[in-house]
Amino acid sequence: MALIVQKFGGTSVGSIERIQNVATIVEAEKNKGNRIVVVVSAMGKTTDQLVSLAGQLTGTPSKREMDMLLSTGEQVTISLLAMALQARGHQAISYTGWQAGIMTEAVPSNARIEDIQTEKIHSKLETEQIVIVAGFQGISADGEITTLGRGGSDTTAVALAAKLGADRCDIYTDVDGVYTSDPRVVGHARKLSTISYDEMLELANLGAGVLHPRAVEFAKNYHVELEVRSSMVADRGTMITEENAMEDQLIVKGIAFEKNVARITLFGLTEQSSGLGEIFSALALEQIDVDIIIHSQLEDGSMNLSFTVNSEDVEQATNLLVRKQEVLGFKEIEFEEGLAKVSAVGSGMISNPGVAAKIFTTLSGGGIPVKMVSTSEIKVSVIVSNDLMEKASNVLHDQFICG
Amino acid sequence: MALIVQKFGGTSVGSIERIQNVATIVEAEKNKGNRIVVVVSAMGKTTDQLVSLAGQLTGTPSKREMDMLLSTGEQVTISLLAMALQARGHQAISYTGWQAGIMTEAVPSNARIEDIQTEKIHSKLETEQIVIVAGFQGISADGEITTLGRGGSDTTAVALAAKLGADRCDIYTDVDGVYTSDPRVVGHARKLSTISYDEMLELANLGAGVLHPRAVEFAKNYHVELEVRSSMVADRGTMITEENAMEDQLIVKGIAFEKNVARITLFGLTEQSSGLGEIFSALALEQIDVDIIIHSQLEDGSMNLSFTVNSEDVEQATNLLVRKQEVLGFKEIEFEEGLAKVSAVGSGMISNPGVAAKIFTTLSGGGIPVKMVSTSEIKVSVIVSNDLMEKASNVLHDQFICG
Repeated sequence: MALIVQKFGGTSVGSIERIQNVATIVEAEKNKGNRIVVVVSAMGKTTDQLVSLAGQLTGTPSKREMDMLLSTGEQVTISLLAMALQARGHQAISYTGWQAGIMTEAVPSNARIEDIQTEKIHSKLETEQIVIVAGFQGISADGEITTLGRGGSDTTAVALAAKLGADRCDIYTDVDGVYTSDPRVVGHARKLSTISYDEMLELANLGAGVLHPRAVEFAKNYHVELEVRSSMVADRGTMITEENAMEDQLIVKGIAFEKNVARITLFGLTEQSSGLGEIFSALALEQIDVDIIIHSQLEDGSMNLSFTVNSEDVEQATNLLVRKQEVLGFKEIEFEEGLAKVSAVGSGMISNPGVAAKIFTTLSGGGIPVKMVSTSEIKVSVIVSNDLMEKASNVLHDQFICG
Repeated sequence: MALIVQKFGGTSVGSIERIQNVATIVEAEKNKGNRIVVVVSAMGKTTDQLVSLAGQLTGTPSKREMDMLLSTGEQVTISLLAMALQARGHQAISYTGWQAGIMTEAVPSNARIEDIQTEKIHSKLETEQIVIVAGFQGISADGEITTLGRGGSDTTAVALAAKLGADRCDIYTDVDGVYTSDPRVVGHARKLSTISYDEMLELANLGAGVLHPRAVEFAKNYHVELEVRSSMVADRGTMITEENAMEDQLIVKGIAFEKNVARITLFGLTEQSSGLGEIFSALALEQIDVDIIIHSQLEDGSMNLSFTVNSEDVEQATNLLVRKQEVLGFKEIEFEEGLAKVSAVGSGMISNPGVAAKIFTTLSGGGIPVKMVSTSEIKVSVIVSNDLMEKASNVLHDQFICG
């Protein structure tokens, strides 16, 4: 008898029919003799509707009251799912975040889970009840309802699996697993049977919404084995684990890409300049995310600095830097829009030197100029122009994964 | 500086515009320098929509899960009202039933309030915050969300007013007060400026929905002064207090009426019959409410028993009694449908003997035969045929209240 945590996202519970479908999936695992904890999100468009109601009252709702408002969404789903399971003759009980003992920081709208008091859930599991927990929400030490921010329901499921010592955590979603790339862009993309936590983290922006990076990090830290699978087709999905299965030893596991990248370059920084710290602190203060950073010292001792930002932020970023030009001490500033980032991810790279070289050869062979490069132990990212992103992704996928 | 509890029902918060209107009313009292606790119901049709969702899953949802489901309704309203007040520059904070410390019995769907832990509300009131509490809901000692059943939000408001020692409890609704009778039926019906708790209890079925009897009882027991008033017009409503104001000393305060009454008569009960207890226990076991009971002993020692039930229940009741005829020991059974009950209510009756006589004279003068009579200290009820109900109500209203 195993203890299984199952998580169903908003699309999977988006209607009464879909909730019945979820009940069928839960029932199947229960009938195998397993103990089941189910975590669900708000039904489909509920959250959007609630946000719209708030928007009709104020442009700047307090985060505390938004948490009060939005946390009703999952509470509706848990009670309906409990009723659906009870109607099938199962014992089921629903718990809000606070009832389930999901203790969080006192940070409205983006709280982190600090602990889970699982006594209540354990006692219900012992009497063979199916326990249904509202995802995305918890309670702070001072009794305030909190929500966990983006990916919150995934995090609830993983945290519960970790704390309960579950044998498995199944993340049911509207895709049937993690793909080597986005099939809409890369023709040969295929579903992976396994992927490691680290690879999944690097691929987080690939097929956004499959699984939130925060939940993956949590799973990694607590060694929770995840399976991402579809709530609509019965096929096995993708296992996310510590180590890759022997049979799936691809050097590159996936090709991720991202449009709307802009590059900003500062020329003529000197030793006397106030330094990189000051530059990036100024950008961070205005909530501008910086991605790839390249910094090179020229023969005359002066330095050039290039970094990428989201296209949306490029105007704000350059204006800010120009305003502070004197303090920051650079000579010239330049920016280029219309760029894209293509990344090859795979933990096999660690033990396979020369992957980067092969990437450059492949891209060059495809007539794709590389404008910037950034590497980590398990990832190589290149910046190319937007209109070559799709081609770059395909040639790399054909080269490293399958053609 | 007064402490005021304001309660707004579902229609009063039925849309974003109506919530803004409520915010205007709350703001006006706050701006007078008062401390304010607001109790709200779920928005307009929300409860019906949630019930319908559950109905699509099961015909017999568990009460526990229905409470989980329905309690989200008020939580939406409280957070939206808090946002509306914050947008106007006020400090406001919303609390669910459990956050507000509304402790109830562990009886799903129909719990009674046992206590209110008001420390949190008091501390917020001390810092001049407007405290908004979800009506209709509470928490049991074992941490289960409960709802209070019909009239629950009224009860929440009155209980909070009692426990907080509020100076006033204003019940805002979609009518502008308590009337001497239903204006749709009785042409001369007018709004009362004051009415006593006991009169209000007797008149509860007059203008159903104005105020739930349970809330009135609570107000009576804890001496909470209530005002029933409209959320749409600024006029004063009706005060519900211990004693009538001097200037409003009507002997009869209101004329209530009710259609669809049926009378059942059992003939020939004897001393050897198993007695009234057995008869009414049998009816109660099948959830059949009995209203007026008349019991008369004939000269030969045998007894006849008449009582009224709702027309809907008459078939079930007679079938049941016929089935048990031998045990219950009556000779014949008869029933009559198409009856109505008309009641004159007023605490002035206690000190004015002869009111009942005047009622019969008035009805007789109007050509209205009286089929049954029942009296209490402050009420006289008569059973007439359905088609004379309206006439009976009008002649009594003209005679005792105003013509």
